[in-house]
Amino acid sequence: KINNKIMAKRYKNPWKTLSSKYVYKNPWTKVREDRVINPLGQKTIYGVIEKEPAVFIIALNKNNELYLVGQYRYTLNEFTWEIPAGACDDQSPLVAAKRELWEETGLKAKKWTKLAKYKAANGIANITYHVFLATELSQSGTNKQKEDGIGDGMFVPLKKVMKLIDQGKITDGPSVTALLYYFLRKKLIKF
Amino acid sequence: KINNKIMAKRYKNPWKTLSSKYVYKNPWTKVREDRVINPLGQKTIYGVIEKEPAVFIIALNKNNELYLVGQYRYTLNEFTWEIPAGACDDQSPLVAAKRELWEETGLKAKKWTKLAKYKAANGIANITYHVFLATELSQSGTNKQKEDGIGDGMFVPLKKVMKLIDQGKITDGPSVTALLYYFLRKKLIKF
Repeated sequence: KINNKIMAKRYKNPWKTLSSKYVYKNPWTKVREDRVINPLGQKTIYGVIEKEPAVFIIALNKNNELYLVGQYRYTLNEFTWEIPAGACDDQSPLVAAKRELWEETGLKAKKWTKLAKYKAANGIANITYHVFLATELSQSGTNKQKEDGIGDGMFVPLKKVMKLIDQGKITDGPSVTALLYYFLRKKLIKF
Repeated sequence: KINNKIMAKRYKNPWKTLSSKYVYKNPWTKVREDRVINPLGQKTIYGVIEKEPAVFIIALNKNNELYLVGQYRYTLNEFTWEIPAGACDDQSPLVAAKRELWEETGLKAKKWTKLAKYKAANGIANITYHVFLATELSQSGTNKQKEDGIGDGMFVPLKKVMKLIDQGKITDGPSVTALLYYFLRKKLIKF
C-alpha cells in the first residue's frame, strides 16, 4: 500500500508555468525566474537555480580510511574537510568521478562502485548528485586544485570521520549524505 | 594529529574579494556576484546563492514509523516523498521546526531533540540546515501547505523508508542526510 502511494502516478502537477526567463548566468550557475500559478491557484514567481550534475567520491583504502580534502571555501570564509567532489562538466558521472578524484587528490582507483543518485535541493533546484565508492587506491600524483582553494588532503580512519561528524567538526552535507548511502549499501545500519 | 589538522587555524583565506553586488533577489533567494582573486592569484568571479537557514524534522512515532510528506516539486516536475522541512523565516531553529512540522503535517511533538547543524552546499552557498528529532507525537490537525504543492503525508515504517532510499524511490538529499545524523546519534551505525 505504501509502495503504491510512493510510486503513484495519480498525483497531477498542481503547478502551471506562465513564462520563464533567465535572470542570471555565470559559467557554473544559472538562475531562472518563472511566473507560475501555484497549487492554490495564485499567480506568483518561482526562482530556480540551475546547476550541472555533480559527483561525490567515497575513497576508502584497505585500512578503512577515508580520503578527505581540506579546502578553503569562499562561500563560508572557512577551511572545511569534505570528500572529493566536483561538477560533471558534461562527462558521464563515472568519468567525471575518476577525473575529480585524480584532480583533487592524485589518487586512482582500480574499483569503482556506484552507490547512489539523488536530488540535492528540491526547494530551489533540480540538481542530481552521483555518489561513488572508489577502492583499491593508488597514489599517482599529488595533484590539487589550488584554484578551488584546495590546500590539503589526507586519509582519516572512518571511525574518526564519524566522530568528527558527530562532534560537528565535519559539517559538509553532501559528504554526510554520501556516507549514509555507503553504510546503507554495506548493510552497516541497524534499523 | 588528525584532530589538530582538522581544527587548524593555520590555514589562511587564499581568496580576496574585490567587489560584491546582488544580481538577483526574490523573497526567498538572493544571488550575489563577487569579483574575486582566486587562490592562484587570478581575477575571476564567484556567484554565491544566499538562502535563509532551514529546518528538517525526523518525526518518529512509537512504532518506529517516520512521517513523510508527499509533495509535487515544481523544480523537478515530479511528486516526491521527503521529511517535513522549511525555512526558518527569522525564527530560532527549534521554533521554526515546531511550526513547520505542524504546518506540513498537523503533528505536534512533546519531545524535541537537536540532531545536527550542517552546511548544505558549500560550493555555491553558505546555507545552514538544522536537523531535529520530534517524538511523542500527537495529531492536532490535518494542516497541509497546499501552496507549496504538499498533497499527501503518512507514517512509513523506518525499515521501509530505508528500503525506498536503497531502491532510489526516495531521492531527497536532505532527508537522507537527516537520517544519517539520526542513526549516528542513536549509535545504530557499525563502523
